[in-house]
Amino acid sequence: MTSPYTVAAVPMRWVGPLRVSGNVVTTETHVPLATYESPLWPSVGRGAKISMLAEHGIVATLVDERMTRSVLVEARDAQTAYTAAWSIEARIDELRDVVRARSRFTELIGVRHEIVANLLFVRFEFATGDAAGHNMATLASDALLGHLLETIPGISYGSISANYCTDKKATAINGILGRGKNVVTELLVPRAVVADVLHTTAARIAELNIRKNLLGTLLAGGIRSANAHFANMLLGFYLATGQDAANIVEGSQGVTMAEDRHGDLYFSCTLPNLIVGTVGNGKELEFVEDNLARLGCRVEREVGENARRLAVIAAATVLCGELSLLAAQTNPGELMRTHVQLERHNNKVKVGD
Amino acid sequence: MTSPYTVAAVPMRWVGPLRVSGNVVTTETHVPLATYESPLWPSVGRGAKISMLAEHGIVATLVDERMTRSVLVEARDAQTAYTAAWSIEARIDELRDVVRARSRFTELIGVRHEIVANLLFVRFEFATGDAAGHNMATLASDALLGHLLETIPGISYGSISANYCTDKKATAINGILGRGKNVVTELLVPRAVVADVLHTTAARIAELNIRKNLLGTLLAGGIRSANAHFANMLLGFYLATGQDAANIVEGSQGVTMAEDRHGDLYFSCTLPNLIVGTVGNGKELEFVEDNLARLGCRVEREVGENARRLAVIAAATVLCGELSLLAAQTNPGELMRTHVQLERHNNKVKVGD
Amino acid sequence: MTSPYTVAAVPMRWVGPLRVSGNVVTTETHVPLATYESPLWPSVGRGAKISMLAEHGIVATLVDERMTRSVLVEARDAQTAYTAAWSIEARIDELRDVVRARSRFTELIGVRHEIVANLLFVRFEFATGDAAGHNMATLASDALLGHLLETIPGISYGSISANYCTDKKATAINGILGRGKNVVTELLVPRAVVADVLHTTAARIAELNIRKNLLGTLLAGGIRSANAHFANMLLGFYLATGQDAANIVEGSQGVTMAEDRHGDLYFSCTLPNLIVGTVGNGKELEFVEDNLARLGCRVEREVGENARRLAVIAAATVLCGELSLLAAQTNPGELMRTHVQLERHNNKVKVGD
Amino acid sequence: MTSPYTVAAVPMRWVGPLRVSGNVVTTETHVPLATYESPLWPSVGRGAKISMLAEHGIVATLVDERMTRSVLVEARDAQTAYTAAWSIEARIDELRDVVRARSRFTELIGVRHEIVANLLFVRFEFATGDAAGHNMATLASDALLGHLLETIPGISYGSISANYCTDKKATAINGILGRGKNVVTELLVPRAVVADVLHTTAARIAELNIRKNLLGTLLAGGIRSANAHFANMLLGFYLATGQDAANIVEGSQGVTMAEDRHGDLYFSCTLPNLIVGTVGNGKELEFVEDNLARLGCRVEREVGENARRLAVIAAATVLCGELSLLAAQTNPGELMRTHVQLERHNNKVKVGD
Repeated sequence: MTSPYTVAAVPMRWVGPLRVSGNVVTTETHVPLATYESPLWPSVGRGAKISMLAEHGIVATLVDERMTRSVLVEARDAQTAYTAAWSIEARIDELRDVVRARSRFTELIGVRHEIVANLLFVRFEFATGDAAGHNMATLASDALLGHLLETIPGISYGSISANYCTDKKATAINGILGRGKNVVTELLVPRAVVADVLHTTAARIAELNIRKNLLGTLLAGGIRSANAHFANMLLGFYLATGQDAANIVEGSQGVTMAEDRHGDLYFSCTLPNLIVGTVGNGKELEFVEDNLARLGCRVEREVGENARRLAVIAAATVLCGELSLLAAQTNPGELMRTHVQLERHNNKVKVGD
Repeated sequence: MTSPYTVAAVPMRWVGPLRVSGNVVTTETHVPLATYESPLWPSVGRGAKISMLAEHGIVATLVDERMTRSVLVEARDAQTAYTAAWSIEARIDELRDVVRARSRFTELIGVRHEIVANLLFVRFEFATGDAAGHNMATLASDALLGHLLETIPGISYGSISANYCTDKKATAINGILGRGKNVVTELLVPRAVVADVLHTTAARIAELNIRKNLLGTLLAGGIRSANAHFANMLLGFYLATGQDAANIVEGSQGVTMAEDRHGDLYFSCTLPNLIVGTVGNGKELEFVEDNLARLGCRVEREVGENARRLAVIAAATVLCGELSLLAAQTNPGELMRTHVQLERHNNKVKVGD
Repeated sequence: MTSPYTVAAVPMRWVGPLRVSGNVVTTETHVPLATYESPLWPSVGRGAKISMLAEHGIVATLVDERMTRSVLVEARDAQTAYTAAWSIEARIDELRDVVRARSRFTELIGVRHEIVANLLFVRFEFATGDAAGHNMATLASDALLGHLLETIPGISYGSISANYCTDKKATAINGILGRGKNVVTELLVPRAVVADVLHTTAARIAELNIRKNLLGTLLAGGIRSANAHFANMLLGFYLATGQDAANIVEGSQGVTMAEDRHGDLYFSCTLPNLIVGTVGNGKELEFVEDNLARLGCRVEREVGENARRLAVIAAATVLCGELSLLAAQTNPGELMRTHVQLERHNNKVKVGD
Repeated sequence: MTSPYTVAAVPMRWVGPLRVSGNVVTTETHVPLATYESPLWPSVGRGAKISMLAEHGIVATLVDERMTRSVLVEARDAQTAYTAAWSIEARIDELRDVVRARSRFTELIGVRHEIVANLLFVRFEFATGDAAGHNMATLASDALLGHLLETIPGISYGSISANYCTDKKATAINGILGRGKNVVTELLVPRAVVADVLHTTAARIAELNIRKNLLGTLLAGGIRSANAHFANMLLGFYLATGQDAANIVEGSQGVTMAEDRHGDLYFSCTLPNLIVGTVGNGKELEFVEDNLARLGCRVEREVGENARRLAVIAAATVLCGELSLLAAQTNPGELMRTHVQLERHNNKVKVGD
């Protein structure tokens, strides 16, 4: 089918700058967001502006990183599955060598398992350098699975991927055991800034967060999720930086916390499942290379440092948009007024999460 | 920040044709997919090829459609919340009129509520014509909320959006109460096609589906989800057709079923939360207009018909990719071999879900 | 196997009185709790004492009641399932008559359905008078299923129970669609009482509730649940009143809310899934009859009133124990001190939830 | 309040014998069940009868055991929480000694943590000998928490229990990280027995299990659960053996698998969260002592062996009841016929799960 278009040209803008500090990076940077929903830009922009008004800006703490792949093994019976599981635990060093023999940048750093009936689910955890690591994890798991099938009696191939990973599905396991980069962001907004820039109070944001993000999501039957719209910022940032944006599914699972601290606002977004990389699929595109370079993520650094920098900036971007929307929703009618204003200027509309 | 790039140019290709029939459309069509993960194209292409070998192709049944927005109301106490809830149920016709007075294309078709402590969550359901309807639902909800606050004593503003909607978060409520278009797709693949094109058997796909999609996701702590990678196809399709792709979060929640029917394969994907439209944000871009036109979704039709057509084609596309990946995972090493082949041709890699 | 014991003699005590008011009942009553965990008694007792110090005591609002059973129907294909679903919706009056013809006290009050692949799940909702209604719902569903199979072409028997009900499994559907009695309890505790009886402050309870019940449960991967130990009180109350105590599984899913209102404590427990009755299995035992009579639930009243009274008292009992435990956990070491004291007196221990 | 009744006398019967083998015990035993729902007895009895017709009976494999308690620590900020978490990981041996100094039978065997905002959730895992271990875990956690607060700067008391444990709430964490005893049971039922005793076929049970337990629970928004009525058998067994029966909440989360193996039925129940003990609260009651003795769980054995034996027998009992109910539900009307028969004999009713 001949079509004149070979790309989907998603509108992209840089917003900011935002200020970010913490255990990975201290910098001020603009961020690129590609989206069909243009109100995302001013929304993130407002949060970025606030980050510049706080001494340390957004403090981003990276607390974990790993990429995972689960395989499925069928055993003769549960006892055989159990024996196999223990064999795997006992031979972790041997398995590390299997991975090392295959790849220079992939390292096996953990294994977890679960047995149901005669089925053994094995979840491998890897360090994957500056790559998000989907493929590295799969390649390593393929080798590991082959090795297990050769060396453990009574088991046979089930699947190279068993949904116990879990990739692009919203589950509890990723947050509990870890998958991707886990970044906690915090911002202390002075009372005056809350009033002048956000037109609200810390108490109202804290209350809304409890009722909407924690309670509302709970009532909806959510799973490990309490936020307004992490997915929107992640999509825009992932598309602009060449990530596999389908990983916003698990990225959408994170927690916003807000506290009234004597009138100042303590605001925090925890993102346990940031799946990002600075090398791999999509990163070879020119605009992506350019964006990554502008974000300072194409510098010669220790392996993994570029990807960590990218993760932390992504998380800070999420906080900016989350703060802005929550503040708006504390005021009756504000979303609507914003909508009308934007419509006049852009003939475009985006309201709410 | 000056950058030479004003768009994220996501690589896009048309694959197919696929054949689809059912209660919305009977057609053969290629489909556009925009993605950084190039193996998605041949994967969906293989499924499309199989659809052409079945008499009716993929049979897609649209079983529901609605867009929702929840508001939060704070009441004096639970009894007041309860009284308010009943007032709302009793005045549904009056509320319909409130919506009609605001918008020609938005219709209130249902209301659900839930009370916790002194808080009342009200979930409005709308018909929104050919639009996905996020903004129409918010505009209507804003009017409804204002009307309720004026006419019901003892309640005050909580939030214009209460996460009980639920937008871009993975929850149970959307599947149970309905949000977006709910499409069931089915394909009966003859035994010979399963063997020749998919290199496997119906029994092995059925078994893998139980163990990986149903059981594996369950063990991972998934919520209303049993599939391998719906999110991948939805992302590619949504970007190519100007959708708000952050809605792949709830789109990723769906169910794959597979049965061995005397050697033939019955394969089905149910997608309860397809959030798509043919008008609205993103649809005015030239390549989007072109894509929608090529998909036959810019034809003068009864209101809503273009969007339904688009939803059904999206769902059929999902089935194609899902079938192909599951088949591959029944064969030890096939993903790896495919990987190496694609790498040779494309110098690009994508393995697994 | 001959054993001298024909009953499990679970220790039972009456604690209270507690004060309860609201849209079902206004009374003061002791409540019976049967348990192996003796610290439950003083814990609930402390909460009851507090309820007596509030003017209206615990205000309990019953906001919904229904019993459900889901059946599974296999259809020729999704289109047939869809047609069947609409036939069911259209013939609701006819189905009501089918139920009425079978039972005097069972009334069909709603139907919901969901389609996956060629499978149709139908969830019937019933009013069941003073019975919890498990059996009445099953008898009625058996009749309804038979009627549907006879009158709708292209469908066949799947199952008389399809786990979409849902009985004794923790799911989201019961809270969202309703199952059992939904009771909201509220108690306003004056600041002085919080200090003197609970040895804490409203602010500390409110904060603990957010962090432990809302956030902690979320992180654990909970589903529609935010409380410390509803299950403990429900088990004790259900055993003492002849209920099917396996229903504490869904009973454990409920929400505790706490607010600091100028130093006073607003405390609320919402229990959406109370499955209780005053007639049916277990109610004919002498001690159960006696307990129900003492609770005022064996009086001649309008059908359903005795069961509603029982539900409301159960909910108030839950609040008492929940408040007491949360207060204790705000104080470092209090649980341990209580433990040691109780151990000295009872040579028995129970600490925490 | 004076009442003549000091116990809830729950009707109790012994059913069986059932045959069980595996890595913990090989025996034939009757089992006691206390319940208000008398149909539970013949239902479990039918399953027990089938276990006697299989050479090895029910093969029960214990694959894990641990008891947990989570504490909550508030840190100055996320970075402090992160530092504290690493300090805890690094000082695991020191923490083990803290526990040992407090208790002879409690051993710290693992620690997991999660950080959200400035909050640190720490989940301690213990071996607790023959006790279920609720109190031992709390005592040990109290000591550990005190030690941490004294030795790590920048943190303060949050809660002695943080719902990340998780006790008596249905969550994902217990299955994923382990809590209680994890037992897999398997039974191979010859084709003739399926036909003669269960009046059905392996294929029909396997199909029903997929549709009802796996798919139906998924659609209901269940979390890590796929079974018909584990909760019923656990309640009866827990009450009869002096367990804290509120733990059926998490006990209800388990997986039934069924396969048609050339006409024979492979049937398996996996129970990841069996919280049982042979010492502790409730075990000192005479009827409990007698029941435990009859089950062979009061014999002088290595520490922990009695509790493991009890867990395995509990799991086998669950399988018996699960198999019987699923078989019945494959046959239209069988539940109703059973109901009518039981009603004639017992004037008592229990239908379905």
